[in-house]
Amino acid sequence: MPRYKLALLGFGNVGRSLALLLQRKEAELRDRYDITFNVTGIATGRHGAAICPDGLDYVRAVKMVEAGESLADLSRLPVQDNFDFLRNCGADVLFENTPVNHETGQPAINHLHLALELGMHAITANKGPVVHAYRDLKKFSEEHNKKFYFESTVMDGAPIFSLFRSALPAARLLGLRGILNSTTNLILGRMESGESFDVAVQYAQSVGLAETDPSADVDGWDAAIKVAALVTVLMDIPFIPQQVDRTGIRLITPEMIAQAKAQGKRWKLVCSAERQADSVKGRVAPELVSSSSPLYSVEGSSSIVEFHTDTLSSLSIVEGNPGPQTTAYGLLADFINAVR
Amino acid sequence: MPRYKLALLGFGNVGRSLALLLQRKEAELRDRYDITFNVTGIATGRHGAAICPDGLDYVRAVKMVEAGESLADLSRLPVQDNFDFLRNCGADVLFENTPVNHETGQPAINHLHLALELGMHAITANKGPVVHAYRDLKKFSEEHNKKFYFESTVMDGAPIFSLFRSALPAARLLGLRGILNSTTNLILGRMESGESFDVAVQYAQSVGLAETDPSADVDGWDAAIKVAALVTVLMDIPFIPQQVDRTGIRLITPEMIAQAKAQGKRWKLVCSAERQADSVKGRVAPELVSSSSPLYSVEGSSSIVEFHTDTLSSLSIVEGNPGPQTTAYGLLADFINAVR
Repeated sequence: MPRYKLALLGFGNVGRSLALLLQRKEAELRDRYDITFNVTGIATGRHGAAICPDGLDYVRAVKMVEAGESLADLSRLPVQDNFDFLRNCGADVLFENTPVNHETGQPAINHLHLALELGMHAITANKGPVVHAYRDLKKFSEEHNKKFYFESTVMDGAPIFSLFRSALPAARLLGLRGILNSTTNLILGRMESGESFDVAVQYAQSVGLAETDPSADVDGWDAAIKVAALVTVLMDIPFIPQQVDRTGIRLITPEMIAQAKAQGKRWKLVCSAERQADSVKGRVAPELVSSSSPLYSVEGSSSIVEFHTDTLSSLSIVEGNPGPQTTAYGLLADFINAVR
Repeated sequence: MPRYKLALLGFGNVGRSLALLLQRKEAELRDRYDITFNVTGIATGRHGAAICPDGLDYVRAVKMVEAGESLADLSRLPVQDNFDFLRNCGADVLFENTPVNHETGQPAINHLHLALELGMHAITANKGPVVHAYRDLKKFSEEHNKKFYFESTVMDGAPIFSLFRSALPAARLLGLRGILNSTTNLILGRMESGESFDVAVQYAQSVGLAETDPSADVDGWDAAIKVAALVTVLMDIPFIPQQVDRTGIRLITPEMIAQAKAQGKRWKLVCSAERQADSVKGRVAPELVSSSSPLYSVEGSSSIVEFHTDTLSSLSIVEGNPGPQTTAYGLLADFINAVR
């Protein structure tokens, strides 16, 4: 039975949830998939890094970081920086979960590139590398006979990329339509309950969904990045967020919300993409959605994508109640699918 | 490049749609999946059967059957019956699409069994064998190193079984909830527009959804069979339709429909299953669904299933606009997944 060495680069909510999920699923991986593993390295943003070639106590690492302690004490080797960490962790599989850089995808792209070069499967929940370097990383992974997987980059752990990779062969994606940004969906929902835009934004900030500067969400950038990732991968057409025709939700007024409600409709920030003759039209904009649309019932931080293909005219995936643990599941699924 | 010999047993709407889909996707299968094929046999219910070891013109066969002609003229070999057909068609892959027998699953079970014994992958859109012989056929297929796949038995061609097989590793299904019977969903929708139950049933019959005797649909049997299939396969717990606590839609009155509508709710025939300590609770019954449920917007012949797992708390699959061509796609996907 193979024993895989795992490295976790980035140990925030998602990385720590992955560690706890790995512990919870350890017996199942062994009994059902013949997979055993050690975690040989964990690198955090602000609590140091640890490398133990024989495997480290990754559950203890979660507790240490949550208590504000440094992991350096656990390490058998000194670690200079993230690249040094990758070179010395000796892993077979890298989970890259450093913060997303929307502009360039760096340094995550370089992390994944180095991991593949060192013979690791490269798994990430980071959208940056998918939007900015998908083709290069995919080609590089194939040259090294390793996998570059990123299920958790869109709709948390819901199977989107693996669906097309394995369960929908010979289905050509013609278009898609969905709700892919939780923060704006939550804000619009709060406004339906009577809150002003500003109060709804404050609420989204208070529950940890919106950033201090909410513009990446409310101006549609996050949604545009997800459209770009889906088009790039599932249509195999390079597409950047700047190519998405993008309108945020700042102009949606309480009056518009009330008027929609009176008509039995809802405002949603709708993401869409459609294949044209030689190109793709991508769009993020508020739309009035009626109750006959599967988008209508998507509440709060839930998300949906409806796919139109040349074989199934409408197939939708809906994820409810996401959180760091669902994102962690996407990473675990990528690991299993990479090695089985 | 391998050249697979295909046999189609059952050549109704679904079988003929599969033939046309095979033609449409022939180049894509070759170029993208390195799969080439011949159709070496087609057996119909009422228009004879044909076997051609070198491959037969399956598009011509569609036209002949649709013109009411017998396929016997195309055949290089005499064909006595379906078992004789299987023994002599020389195929590597069987598509079994004979009419469903809800009581016993026969003779489809015997067809699939013989096909596996003869070294074919056994693919079916027929629910009977899944409900009545899943474990046996699965074990038998593994012993013969062949695949027994049946994606099209529930929700047409939407990926349900392949989703759990390939895209959702290490996800334990705890429960499910869905709308799986098109006919009752259409009838309830027509009643919302003001039709009586009887008129709505007649409409469903006129568009070919309901049978002359609509009881299999309106009394919940078809839905119960689908619940049994999902539980049997996805929870790996043998479960028969008779174990499903079943209530049909005959007692739903126009008054109840109107009252629900006034509350912003809809009556839906809801299928559900839930794991208990040592068993499963399966249920089919009309339920009032509110607009916050993903079931709310499922109209007409569309269908949905919401899965609750130990890793993703809510993942729904929605299929819109199904038809024989979507069922055919499920069969094609099974073929590709069986051989790739």
